[in-house]
Amino acid sequence: MSDLTFTLDEVHALATSVLSHNGCNAANAAAVADVITAAERDGCHSHGLMRLAGYVASLKSGKVNGHAEPTVDKIAGAVVRVDGDSGFAPLALACGREPLIDAAKTSGIAALALTDIHHFAALWTEIEPIAEAGLCALACVSYKPAVIPAGGSKPLYGTNPLAFGWPREDNPPVIFDQASSVMARGEVMLAAREGKALPAGVGVDKDGRETTDPNEVLDGALLAFGGHKGSSIAMMIELFAGALIGECFSFEAAERDNNDGGPPSGGELIIAMDPQLFGDSEGWAAHAEKLFAQIEAQPGSRLPSARRYSNRRETASAGVKLSAKVHDSILALCEPSGSA
Amino acid sequence: MSDLTFTLDEVHALATSVLSHNGCNAANAAAVADVITAAERDGCHSHGLMRLAGYVASLKSGKVNGHAEPTVDKIAGAVVRVDGDSGFAPLALACGREPLIDAAKTSGIAALALTDIHHFAALWTEIEPIAEAGLCALACVSYKPAVIPAGGSKPLYGTNPLAFGWPREDNPPVIFDQASSVMARGEVMLAAREGKALPAGVGVDKDGRETTDPNEVLDGALLAFGGHKGSSIAMMIELFAGALIGECFSFEAAERDNNDGGPPSGGELIIAMDPQLFGDSEGWAAHAEKLFAQIEAQPGSRLPSARRYSNRRETASAGVKLSAKVHDSILALCEPSGSA
Repeated sequence: MSDLTFTLDEVHALATSVLSHNGCNAANAAAVADVITAAERDGCHSHGLMRLAGYVASLKSGKVNGHAEPTVDKIAGAVVRVDGDSGFAPLALACGREPLIDAAKTSGIAALALTDIHHFAALWTEIEPIAEAGLCALACVSYKPAVIPAGGSKPLYGTNPLAFGWPREDNPPVIFDQASSVMARGEVMLAAREGKALPAGVGVDKDGRETTDPNEVLDGALLAFGGHKGSSIAMMIELFAGALIGECFSFEAAERDNNDGGPPSGGELIIAMDPQLFGDSEGWAAHAEKLFAQIEAQPGSRLPSARRYSNRRETASAGVKLSAKVHDSILALCEPSGSA
Repeated sequence: MSDLTFTLDEVHALATSVLSHNGCNAANAAAVADVITAAERDGCHSHGLMRLAGYVASLKSGKVNGHAEPTVDKIAGAVVRVDGDSGFAPLALACGREPLIDAAKTSGIAALALTDIHHFAALWTEIEPIAEAGLCALACVSYKPAVIPAGGSKPLYGTNPLAFGWPREDNPPVIFDQASSVMARGEVMLAAREGKALPAGVGVDKDGRETTDPNEVLDGALLAFGGHKGSSIAMMIELFAGALIGECFSFEAAERDNNDGGPPSGGELIIAMDPQLFGDSEGWAAHAEKLFAQIEAQPGSRLPSARRYSNRRETASAGVKLSAKVHDSILALCEPSGSA
């Protein structure tokens, strides 16, 4: 009833304004506003405007550098590194994207190592432009301990999302972006906000007991998806976004974090491959469509990104809905006492 | 009671003899015998000597070329392709391994695309020597449809294993090798052989009904691990081992397969990265040990490959046990009517 409706331009302007008021320069504010707007556009509200409070908190505490100037280095023939200068991830990624794409289109495969960044966004927003450039790509990032290693009892891994994208000629890319936990932490936060119970099997409380209370899970731990298999993938992501690129593991990120509610410092790894250079330069795109057709031919089965693209089409006409209460809380972030 | 005990050399000689008697030349027989022996050594019997019947069937039917001479091409700066010449995968992989390692140590990251191979082994045997060379690596392969896409009802994906390895200085590599199905097809075959029921939630019969009968599941379909997340990973592997490298999807492999009981034709993708070239050349190995120590510090939690290495140590003294019945069935593969 008290919902307000915003265009995507208005969402972007709102996010930019809040970030600028709280210590981001224009480049950093725009890069973060881009990913917040993309999340709202695609119906992923858990990564949209509701994250502004966390972004602002980490600017106010001084943890994140709102004037970060990322530096890009080609540290090996097919490895690009971006030092994020303690800023939010989006600007670092924007700086490294073209060098990654160029390296993959030269060598067939290339990697982008992002270090000294604060990551608080969805990975699919990062995969999409790389896939739109004609590459298939993998991305992963760790966080702070939230997931129990299989067989253990204490959180060690972050929710550690893994995202994958595949380029298409006449459609937006096929992309999945999935946490290594049964449920993403952002979804648990949304459930807590909305006062909804979680399904069984998602997580445990701080004493290791299964619970469906999202607040108890946020204080406790999440379970990995698929038992030991999801746990293995979470471990792999710790190594990719940590030891491989000279960045911290989730448990180390937590040790140095100031717990201001914003994202800790850490790293991210993206791998991109150019199907034009893998042996079937003429046929790969049409060939992939045969698989997608098989997936879509089964009733109940759909391509991983179908729901997001459907939301995107709907948002284009319906705009982004926001309750007056949430809108007020965002505006309050621009007031002197906004972060209190 | 009627168990026979063999040394690893005897296992290797037995496998080599059976393969040589059935149409493999020395190089192909030795390469396949290597992976069978490694499986028996590490207690992975589902990929050991019990696979010989399938290998032999596909030699006898003429589907697989026992005299394959793989050819290696560097098709891009960091992409190596091996055309397997319709042989079993192990020789193709042996030919491509050093070029992959060289490319990764030059460019930081590199890919190996194996095409026109017949893959019937465990991926960890392929990851281990790459990790022993100091690289971290990912490998994946498709098969024939056995796994239902999330939400659907008919098998589309292969069991599509994903394997990962991380090199260590004073220990063998940390490696996981996990099917995209809840349970590997090899494990279901072993259960069928041993007349054991499966746990609930592993698969469905040919009419899509859940069942714990391994034979019904082999005629029906497996479920992906972790619901839609495992299904997404299975899809990604179809694209990596299929469209990306100009090879077939699982459903296409099935269409052209002669169902002789041996492995269909298909492809495989391996990605290798050199941590020395990713920005922390001094510290990466010691840093990773801190994560492994955290995993092992939790009671009930262990490193993914721990059980295999424990089996390996035990096999070194205890040898490989084989029932007289199974041994007889292997010897029968060398007789003129052996494949009947």
